Amino acid sequence: MQTLLARHSCRQFTETPLTQQEVDSLLHAAMQAPSAGNEQPWHFYVCTSAEVRHQLRQASPYAGPAEAAPCAIVVCVDKTKIKYQGNEVQDCAAASQNILLAAYDMGLGAVWLGITPEADRVERVNRILSLPETMTAFSIIAVGHPRVPQTTAPAQSRFDASRVHVVA
Amino acid sequence: MQTLLARHSCRQFTETPLTQQEVDSLLHAAMQAPSAGNEQPWHFYVCTSAEVRHQLRQASPYAGPAEAAPCAIVVCVDKTKIKYQGNEVQDCAAASQNILLAAYDMGLGAVWLGITPEADRVERVNRILSLPETMTAFSIIAVGHPRVPQTTAPAQSRFDASRVHVVA
Repeated sequence: MQTLLARHSCRQFTETPLTQQEVDSLLHAAMQAPSAGNEQPWHFYVCTSAEVRHQLRQASPYAGPAEAAPCAIVVCVDKTKIKYQGNEVQDCAAASQNILLAAYDMGLGAVWLGITPEADRVERVNRILSLPETMTAFSIIAVGHPRVPQTTAPAQSRFDASRVHVVA
Repeated sequence: MQTLLARHSCRQFTETPLTQQEVDSLLHAAMQAPSAGNEQPWHFYVCTSAEVRHQLRQASPYAGPAEAAPCAIVVCVDKTKIKYQGNEVQDCAAASQNILLAAYDMGLGAVWLGITPEADRVERVNRILSLPETMTAFSIIAVGHPRVPQTTAPAQSRFDASRVHVVA
């Protein structure tokens, strides 16, 4: 619960690379996300190449952290795995959120860079990664060691009672 | 991390209602989710009414847990809050995932019942809740005390190394 309340986006990182174990933990958390009919339509491109991350940063006006972080995980949809058309976006969003939470929990920093549903961004990332026809980019999660140590205090609360409706 | 790995869907519940504090904690976690440009396009309908939950179960062939659980939280999109068209689905998916994780972390059980993108399900839930024109149903999270106590052991791993591509 502390992680759910304290997690926040991190956009500035040290140059320390992630360990293999850290990457594995992030991907285990990602793949444990729920999906429609358990379709698990996801693939993960773990980009540590400076050249590829430099290209990824140009995929969107907000993708700077893909280069600033030592690791950019591109969450992709494998279209051949879709059983319930249209649900793959929600599935990959849940997997993306799990990566963010796992990163925070491990003392890493991370930020979700939106790719889908912007067609031009999707096309650019698909081309940068030379994705096969069956695969399409969903999001980029930039992750690394935060340049400014993260606090474990709850992030500024976004709770808004006006968004709650009781049907008793 | 333990919560991320151990969380799993729960579809059978005791009759014990949630406390106000439990509901509040779930909603705090939900609203702490990231969203595109921090647009926070969500509203939450907390349905404890047996009659309303009985109607909600008929909204989809898979919505039985909405009646079985003492509480069904309907996550909705407030269309007036959308700043980045098309991203509201991802935002509400992240909020839904946070509710599932918070529930598990609190010893509760929960399951995500898909509504969007199925137009007929969306229309039924919108009608059941008499949502205003500006609001549309996204998902139902059924939540309660699990009939069978949850284990804290990791759920069966869905990790699949063939979904990982290293770009070094």
